[in-house]
Amino acid sequence: MIIGKVIGNVWATRKEESLNGMKLMVVRRLDTESGCEQESFVAVDCVGAGIGERVLVTTGSSARMALDNPNKPVDATIVGIIDEVEVRAEG
Amino acid sequence: MIIGKVIGNVWATRKEESLNGMKLMVVRRLDTESGCEQESFVAVDCVGAGIGERVLVTTGSSARMALDNPNKPVDATIVGIIDEVEVRAEG
Amino acid sequence: MIIGKVIGNVWATRKEESLNGMKLMVVRRLDTESGCEQESFVAVDCVGAGIGERVLVTTGSSARMALDNPNKPVDATIVGIIDEVEVRAEG
Amino acid sequence: MIIGKVIGNVWATRKEESLNGMKLMVVRRLDTESGCEQESFVAVDCVGAGIGERVLVTTGSSARMALDNPNKPVDATIVGIIDEVEVRAEG
Amino acid sequence: MIIGKVIGNVWATRKEESLNGMKLMVVRRLDTESGCEQESFVAVDCVGAGIGERVLVTTGSSARMALDNPNKPVDATIVGIIDEVEVRAEG
Repeated sequence: MIIGKVIGNVWATRKEESLNGMKLMVVRRLDTESGCEQESFVAVDCVGAGIGERVLVTTGSSARMALDNPNKPVDATIVGIIDEVEVRAEG
Repeated sequence: MIIGKVIGNVWATRKEESLNGMKLMVVRRLDTESGCEQESFVAVDCVGAGIGERVLVTTGSSARMALDNPNKPVDATIVGIIDEVEVRAEG
Repeated sequence: MIIGKVIGNVWATRKEESLNGMKLMVVRRLDTESGCEQESFVAVDCVGAGIGERVLVTTGSSARMALDNPNKPVDATIVGIIDEVEVRAEG
Repeated sequence: MIIGKVIGNVWATRKEESLNGMKLMVVRRLDTESGCEQESFVAVDCVGAGIGERVLVTTGSSARMALDNPNKPVDATIVGIIDEVEVRAEG
Repeated sequence: MIIGKVIGNVWATRKEESLNGMKLMVVRRLDTESGCEQESFVAVDCVGAGIGERVLVTTGSSARMALDNPNKPVDATIVGIIDEVEVRAEG
């Protein structure tokens, strides 16, 4: 899974019907140690994440397992809101 | 999912039969914040996108879930035409 | 999908039995606009492509949908021979 | 599969229910020869790995095959704790 | 698929039970034309490959199709030992 930060929303009225009602959020990938920002992408929110929150994102076919129906064209889902990332120096 | 811009079409008369009738479009990936252009690829259009439009693209096995029959050799589909990408500075 | 150019063949007598009879071709990925060459990989030809031809390649699990039997260890298939890539400047 | 080093843990109280009880660990990918560190990501531990240990990580849909129930939104699992990586110079 | 060179072995006594008996080999990806070495990863050997041999590797869910049982946590398998890579200059 990827650690990222929610930085915005995407609005698309003309879209696949099966995506209706889904919250499409823009997420910027974070490097866990340096925190420096990397590429951004769009994920479907499954846990009520808000802008600015650090989140856990699952990608690929596994992302669909967080949906009520896994047969939808979604390749990234927000599956957790992160409380803490504990990285040990000697780790 | 990826945000991209439709920049062209691909024509291929000799192709897998199951791809017949599909609109093959060239999409350039965009960075959501900077808007700077990245790699390009080919996606099947499922929502009537036109050249120059900003689109939402699903990739991998999930892309096939936007097709009438998911057992076709397609790994990228255009699933939405973007109205707005709202990225917050403090995000 | 990826646009690439067929640049060669791979010969492997000792291989997975289910790959027997398949044409293994070396494909170099092309950037659609600049045409500059990128990484190369091996794909199974499903449409009779020849050396030097520009081709459309599907990757991942979707690649297997172009095979007679999708339960074979193949992650890239050539699914089209490209006639034309039409990229619009204002695109 | 990927060779990596466990460098920390992730805590997320608000998450997908199906992830409850899973140990979410931060893993830094290692280059097998140089040992130099690369990108980091989050994986579910399936073998009792500890901080600082070198581990074998499976990603994508295959990662889910290490879980008791493969229909969970997980795209990376720790499937082994490495005793030794034997790389031969002339290799 | 990827062309790579087998450069070593990985030993992991504490691992997923379903991986028992599998030969875990370290493979370095090769660029087909320049032959220059790229990232390395771990693959399960399915064709009796040895150190120093050039091999064909399938990745992702397709890799599992080379196993006796495809429901194992494996995302890369060696599916061929390469005799020759024939790349044509004008290709």
